Amino acid sequence: MLDFRQLQALATVIEEQSFDRAAKRLFLTQSAISQRIKQLEESTGQLLLIRSQPLKLTPAGQQLQRHYHQVSLLQSELLHSLSNTQEEGFTRLTIGLNADSLATWFMAAMQPLLEQSPVLLDLRVDDQEQTHQLLKQGDVLGCISASSKPLQGGNAVPLGISRYLALASPEYIERYFPQGVSSEALTNAPAVEYNEKDDLQDNFISAFFPGVERYPRHRVPSSEAFTELIRRGLAWGMVPDLQMNAQINSGEVKEIAAGMSLEVPLYWHSWNLVSNFSQQLTHQLVNYCHIHLEQPEI
Amino acid sequence: MLDFRQLQALATVIEEQSFDRAAKRLFLTQSAISQRIKQLEESTGQLLLIRSQPLKLTPAGQQLQRHYHQVSLLQSELLHSLSNTQEEGFTRLTIGLNADSLATWFMAAMQPLLEQSPVLLDLRVDDQEQTHQLLKQGDVLGCISASSKPLQGGNAVPLGISRYLALASPEYIERYFPQGVSSEALTNAPAVEYNEKDDLQDNFISAFFPGVERYPRHRVPSSEAFTELIRRGLAWGMVPDLQMNAQINSGEVKEIAAGMSLEVPLYWHSWNLVSNFSQQLTHQLVNYCHIHLEQPEI
Repeated sequence: MLDFRQLQALATVIEEQSFDRAAKRLFLTQSAISQRIKQLEESTGQLLLIRSQPLKLTPAGQQLQRHYHQVSLLQSELLHSLSNTQEEGFTRLTIGLNADSLATWFMAAMQPLLEQSPVLLDLRVDDQEQTHQLLKQGDVLGCISASSKPLQGGNAVPLGISRYLALASPEYIERYFPQGVSSEALTNAPAVEYNEKDDLQDNFISAFFPGVERYPRHRVPSSEAFTELIRRGLAWGMVPDLQMNAQINSGEVKEIAAGMSLEVPLYWHSWNLVSNFSQQLTHQLVNYCHIHLEQPEI
Repeated sequence: MLDFRQLQALATVIEEQSFDRAAKRLFLTQSAISQRIKQLEESTGQLLLIRSQPLKLTPAGQQLQRHYHQVSLLQSELLHSLSNTQEEGFTRLTIGLNADSLATWFMAAMQPLLEQSPVLLDLRVDDQEQTHQLLKQGDVLGCISASSKPLQGGNAVPLGISRYLALASPEYIERYFPQGVSSEALTNAPAVEYNEKDDLQDNFISAFFPGVERYPRHRVPSSEAFTELIRRGLAWGMVPDLQMNAQINSGEVKEIAAGMSLEVPLYWHSWNLVSNFSQQLTHQLVNYCHIHLEQPEI
């Protein structure tokens, strides 16, 4: 049987990325934290923690972390049902999601659960292709991902489609695309991308305007600053229609090439847990998205 | 004399975090990229690149990267003044900044420069304490930081003060602080923090409500989702007054404890470069901030 306090020490050091902060959070000394992790490594016969900056888990450490998060969830539900209303009664939901879901519909979908239950969100933002990795490593309990493939021991439920439009301001379009969009015009027109993993602009170009070898691009790792650059007439970029609906309707921004859009399907992935919160969470996300996100045609 | 194409291969691999993407961007094969980096390591007699995930530079590699960015800037200005208007004529400005500056005033301050000059932004978002590190490593040409201390060979110019207020919705305040804020009430009231490095909520509590040992907190690594959680009445948190001015004026959110705020001074750090763009950038940021940010009393 694994010692739960040792698992907690390991998981907390990773969450806080510091022995010192983990010690404070658990009301322990740093050396007690170190010792617990060492004992866990001895009892499992495996190296679990890579003591570098940033602190990282080995694959064995990741498995233990996943186990810890799953047991914690079950345990805090138990405490909650025993109507413990102290701070310890809060349940931490670690969720991986893409920045655009967070910037558009996610908080609205979570509101009822957050209002009704003593739940704390712990969000990790990453590319829709990378969030899957967070789930696999045990960093999160569930994630929103573009991948439809469930992990072994996990579930994948379709949420809907995020439709990306290529948007720019009317002034921008007049300046850079006076004769309409073409491969040549795109070569000189500044785009914006979220980060090095964001390939939506590349995908748009290769789908509709092949032959562009490269094009200038800003890098702005914030969904809102990304749309701000577009609104200010400084770049074109791929934005979920949900995010700029108001500006599209008011004419503040428009599609650079009408009718050319990209679809990114979104799935909710979680571990198969007989956990109330986890089931409620899935239920709530799915219900919300089936109403508010575009659904694939059947 | 260092081979500039080798430096470019090294810097591009780090920017793209992939040999494959770096090769595509430079129109080279992967093995050509590998070879250039190896040659650079041989000619400098130092290990430069740590070939792990994520790809990292050694301290020697960081020095070379810094040099590369500085020379690139000077070079692209030269090309620009030779009125090369092709894609190569765009100058990349890599800037480190905190999420709250990006969410509030940064884009407005940059607009004139972006409109007038062929400049591409490459932004790295990190905590105001960490951006300094990005500059030191040579990842960025300039950064916005809370530290007033210039790096050796660098400049630090005060921009102004970012004032943080502890905000929540009126419904939230009624629910969690019916008798006003106290250390005891804070123990059970969910807060929101940006990430594990965000200590503004901690600082607020220790400055004004000592004796709170711990308190429940959401973690939401997006400035806008952070304020959304507050607007929706689900948490209290520290927000720059600039960011929620409209909501404060409309009464949608208010200070949980009037008159208790934190000041974070902001400084612009850059290398001492005889570069036009770099001087223009500094000039423009300082001018904008001196008008739009709160200035310290003299």
